[in-house]
Amino acid sequence: MEKIVNVVIIGASGYTGADAIRLLSEHPFANITALTAHQHAGKNLSDIYPQFASVSPQILQTTDEIDWSNVDIAICGLPHGTSQKLIAAIPDTVKIIDMSADFRLKNQTTYQDWYGLSHDFPDLLSEAVYGLSEHYAEAIASSRLVACPGCYPTAVLTALLPVIKAGQVSCEDLIIDAKSGVTGAGRSLKEANLFSEIAEGLAPYGIARHRHAPEIEQELGLAAGLDNVTINFTPHLVPMNRGELVTIYAKTNGANADDMRSTLAAFYNDKPFVTIVGENETPATRHVRGSNYCHVGVYQDRVPNRVILVATLDNLVKGSSGQAVQNLNLMCGFDETSGLTQLPLYP
Amino acid sequence: MEKIVNVVIIGASGYTGADAIRLLSEHPFANITALTAHQHAGKNLSDIYPQFASVSPQILQTTDEIDWSNVDIAICGLPHGTSQKLIAAIPDTVKIIDMSADFRLKNQTTYQDWYGLSHDFPDLLSEAVYGLSEHYAEAIASSRLVACPGCYPTAVLTALLPVIKAGQVSCEDLIIDAKSGVTGAGRSLKEANLFSEIAEGLAPYGIARHRHAPEIEQELGLAAGLDNVTINFTPHLVPMNRGELVTIYAKTNGANADDMRSTLAAFYNDKPFVTIVGENETPATRHVRGSNYCHVGVYQDRVPNRVILVATLDNLVKGSSGQAVQNLNLMCGFDETSGLTQLPLYP
Amino acid sequence: MEKIVNVVIIGASGYTGADAIRLLSEHPFANITALTAHQHAGKNLSDIYPQFASVSPQILQTTDEIDWSNVDIAICGLPHGTSQKLIAAIPDTVKIIDMSADFRLKNQTTYQDWYGLSHDFPDLLSEAVYGLSEHYAEAIASSRLVACPGCYPTAVLTALLPVIKAGQVSCEDLIIDAKSGVTGAGRSLKEANLFSEIAEGLAPYGIARHRHAPEIEQELGLAAGLDNVTINFTPHLVPMNRGELVTIYAKTNGANADDMRSTLAAFYNDKPFVTIVGENETPATRHVRGSNYCHVGVYQDRVPNRVILVATLDNLVKGSSGQAVQNLNLMCGFDETSGLTQLPLYP
Amino acid sequence: MEKIVNVVIIGASGYTGADAIRLLSEHPFANITALTAHQHAGKNLSDIYPQFASVSPQILQTTDEIDWSNVDIAICGLPHGTSQKLIAAIPDTVKIIDMSADFRLKNQTTYQDWYGLSHDFPDLLSEAVYGLSEHYAEAIASSRLVACPGCYPTAVLTALLPVIKAGQVSCEDLIIDAKSGVTGAGRSLKEANLFSEIAEGLAPYGIARHRHAPEIEQELGLAAGLDNVTINFTPHLVPMNRGELVTIYAKTNGANADDMRSTLAAFYNDKPFVTIVGENETPATRHVRGSNYCHVGVYQDRVPNRVILVATLDNLVKGSSGQAVQNLNLMCGFDETSGLTQLPLYP
Repeated sequence: MEKIVNVVIIGASGYTGADAIRLLSEHPFANITALTAHQHAGKNLSDIYPQFASVSPQILQTTDEIDWSNVDIAICGLPHGTSQKLIAAIPDTVKIIDMSADFRLKNQTTYQDWYGLSHDFPDLLSEAVYGLSEHYAEAIASSRLVACPGCYPTAVLTALLPVIKAGQVSCEDLIIDAKSGVTGAGRSLKEANLFSEIAEGLAPYGIARHRHAPEIEQELGLAAGLDNVTINFTPHLVPMNRGELVTIYAKTNGANADDMRSTLAAFYNDKPFVTIVGENETPATRHVRGSNYCHVGVYQDRVPNRVILVATLDNLVKGSSGQAVQNLNLMCGFDETSGLTQLPLYP
Repeated sequence: MEKIVNVVIIGASGYTGADAIRLLSEHPFANITALTAHQHAGKNLSDIYPQFASVSPQILQTTDEIDWSNVDIAICGLPHGTSQKLIAAIPDTVKIIDMSADFRLKNQTTYQDWYGLSHDFPDLLSEAVYGLSEHYAEAIASSRLVACPGCYPTAVLTALLPVIKAGQVSCEDLIIDAKSGVTGAGRSLKEANLFSEIAEGLAPYGIARHRHAPEIEQELGLAAGLDNVTINFTPHLVPMNRGELVTIYAKTNGANADDMRSTLAAFYNDKPFVTIVGENETPATRHVRGSNYCHVGVYQDRVPNRVILVATLDNLVKGSSGQAVQNLNLMCGFDETSGLTQLPLYP
Repeated sequence: MEKIVNVVIIGASGYTGADAIRLLSEHPFANITALTAHQHAGKNLSDIYPQFASVSPQILQTTDEIDWSNVDIAICGLPHGTSQKLIAAIPDTVKIIDMSADFRLKNQTTYQDWYGLSHDFPDLLSEAVYGLSEHYAEAIASSRLVACPGCYPTAVLTALLPVIKAGQVSCEDLIIDAKSGVTGAGRSLKEANLFSEIAEGLAPYGIARHRHAPEIEQELGLAAGLDNVTINFTPHLVPMNRGELVTIYAKTNGANADDMRSTLAAFYNDKPFVTIVGENETPATRHVRGSNYCHVGVYQDRVPNRVILVATLDNLVKGSSGQAVQNLNLMCGFDETSGLTQLPLYP
Repeated sequence: MEKIVNVVIIGASGYTGADAIRLLSEHPFANITALTAHQHAGKNLSDIYPQFASVSPQILQTTDEIDWSNVDIAICGLPHGTSQKLIAAIPDTVKIIDMSADFRLKNQTTYQDWYGLSHDFPDLLSEAVYGLSEHYAEAIASSRLVACPGCYPTAVLTALLPVIKAGQVSCEDLIIDAKSGVTGAGRSLKEANLFSEIAEGLAPYGIARHRHAPEIEQELGLAAGLDNVTINFTPHLVPMNRGELVTIYAKTNGANADDMRSTLAAFYNDKPFVTIVGENETPATRHVRGSNYCHVGVYQDRVPNRVILVATLDNLVKGSSGQAVQNLNLMCGFDETSGLTQLPLYP
């Protein structure tokens, strides 16, 4: 039997915090010791999430109230900017899994350019490991601070990294058309997120300026050995709660879709959460909803020397809290699937 | 450690069959040994449900191919009419949990009147136990054949039985306005179930002739000690996948909403899946989605001597496959929550 | 050819204001001369509603900027409380159609009890006509101030008034289970109205305390000649944009569903916007979406001496802006259907 | 006052037929004289579309029953294959607007390759005019047979043709990521179109083999003066009823997004249904729902020498029945907007 670890969830009132609670409640070796939610401190968790009446503890605290001596790991679901300050104040004895963007970009200037904020903790930044579980498992296992990737980058990089590394696809002229459900926008109050503004409608947003672009470019550059990669990344908002799907249009270096499917299948063969679908199958968000799975397909384009890669995941699970739990497992030496064995909810 | 039981799922291609697979995959003591799906026999489960690629076994069989000597329990998710014949042919050594309507109505004539079919197995009918877990736990535990209640009756009876038995509410003039998501209609091809016919719309259906009415009337009569109970039952179809909510308008016998909330809270105090919400809280389908929970609220009406009871559940879980698994636990002596501990998926 | 009337829309940025613009743009005899939107004054209409780029005028003004000498009619789509003050300041030469609740309740105390505000303009209140077009057409035609009914009351009263007046249905023990799309909540920022809080879910709200109850009770009392009527009114929020459906459970005074269908058909025979559906047909919100129609059905209950009445309408059209335009037609002597001939949008 | 034309709608029970009825009911100069629906012949229109109870005529006929001597124009909403045979049998005196794919592809072999059917009426094929109203207005005005474009091609070509003709964009390496609501699949019974299979989910379909690709390629080739154009075209199904949005990734020939926005604005300046949105605005399906508008935006990509064009329309209106009515107006010399002035329905 594994040793039980004590986990604090920072930012329990947001959707990613809530999904971390849902997943950890099924975790055999992780024990939630405290929940924080600055704005709701003093309330019970079930006051804001009635589905969690059976979860323990119930009380929502401020971060100041946490007794860190009792904590092994903190999972942090705060907005960027807020995260870096708070994380810097956590004692060294606590491991940290950050779901915000604050420790994803290794270059401080890039962070400042895209987020409009200075990064004040360069030491932490250089210490942080990019938490794409299937690709940085060893570094994650030995790290103290893991920066979980954005939801879109997780889908994109899961599809692209193996074929980029294999030289089968070019980093030039990469076009990534992304679609996401509305929980990707979190629980914040904006007119654009009202039901009546979204239901029965579809639109792109953040064209050519979405903050997940530099994160994807950083990792593609590392994989390809290039200093600069510039991609097209165009997200769209879809009238559904959960789910994300990216359609990637790529130039090949001689390889075809079958070759790439083989490369991907070989790479992910022993990775429990990534499934490469057959040439006659199509990834669909409903096939992964509520689960930590990512489904990837590759298709030959009619345009010569081009392929289409499609990847889908649940933005709140593999795209956020699920990958956080997966990283917790890696950091603690647990089986990678602990707490993550639930099958998708479909329909 | 409990003994492992071997389970066959009959009708694995329907939505209730699929949700039984989802739930049993997390069950610590139940092992799926075979899956049947007449129409899809020979295919893999993942051919029709790509989210189940990791489930074992994968092959879909006909019922004729099942080796019953190896089976402890059959969970049956077939349409009514088909069920009774098939169940009659299963060897005595196998326990059966039927999710169809075939063994719910104790009166053969009532069955014939409402379903337009004769019931050909009166012995099985008298042997069958009505599988409302919280109310017939003992009988279920010792039975060979359990008839899981309909989804609407489960919600209605969970709210009403304790207050009827306590004499707080009258069986006269009961009005039940019910609302359900679309999975309640199953996966069958009907124009009325097309996305474009349902999205962005709401309508009642089966007004004054829905087949769950006699089932509710039977159980209310038993609880109240009345030979005949006639209720209003009016279901509505709501543009969502899962979830069911019943709003019950009832005449009181002197008691008020607080009294009834106490009665319900006391009755369900030790029942893990029924939650009685406070007077300032409101049941919502999203608070139970994907889980085996049923939430119940009671509210004082402005009309004198009347209360409003509201109950909600996931029609595919507590309303069908979840209650089937709960009954399996009762029949096998497992902890009642085995395989059913997943928290709701919200958002 | 009719004389053209000049119309100001007060509160053009809300959903009811926007739908008034949509409908008036097709009106042959009404000319929009100004649009006000306090919060957005100075912007163009198309800045907040891109679908209205072709509408003229485009500029959004404050009410102070309106030159009333040029205005025949004001359609007011402001929140209650704000409305009464603003309307009191409009010159006598302007006719007013108010879509708020401020002039619906004839009794100042009732208004104060339910809205928590004093009503400061009793003279205007006694002058105001309740704008249920099919039932108060003559009074509306000769009035200066029309208070358009709430969306729910329009549906409920359209179904009930004729059968109440005919003595076929009792005002005692009336139970009204109401369901509405989300636009009924307007465009205001509330967490409960976020897409991710509503999609794939259903819940009641305002149980036994919704403000449309006293409005319905007032009109039922007038129709039945009773001083006090108390009803059950229980609304539910449905995951769709538009549409409202009320299911009314009523006791009969000897009459049956066929009798009532005849009464309703006779009453609405020459009313273009109310359709009484046959006994084998079912009202559905999608059959009226985007239009000024109201569909009503009557069904015999299995419970003796009870019927079920179902009425549906588009809450933004017949439930608000459409009825406002219908009242404008009555007040100006136009054909009642002017500007309202669009058929429903389905699917 | 214009002369009234008599119109037959062939295939009135499908969604495109139904939307043609909705639009023509507001047309000042078009009179529906007959409706056909082979499968429903003998029924009333309101039996299958209750929202059309006020439409005249009500009776649904077979095509054989039509008295063509009384008909000026036929609007045909049948499936491909069926259309060509039926249209060939219509007398010469009747003008025809076909919404199927049968007369869109000028090359018989291409038709056979993509539709798996022979084209048996080459004379009609060479006579047919491609009904993209803004681009072939003159030819449409003088034609007898108009082949309305597919919904996707209408969106794509509206965005691309002017900039292709201006030489600002290359036909090489064009990538078109398309998203559509579910009405695009029509009212046919397929498991994939059930509500529970689509709601809360997103997926691509027909990757690299959708039949709208050759239609787009044909028209791009004509515009660019190229014999062969091969594009990427990847459609996705979105959980909403109406609306379509295409995101086009294109290589520039020196021009930038501002240049193209100017080209498009100039080309569509006098075209009432095409709106070029500003650089800070984003096309959204909800801005055109229920209307004949097409909104187009152009954005500079971060990848050098690349732009992103976005176009959106209602697939049942500008993508089908609305463009059919627009073509009817052109063929009859009516104002192009006759019957098409309704503003979008939003929310």
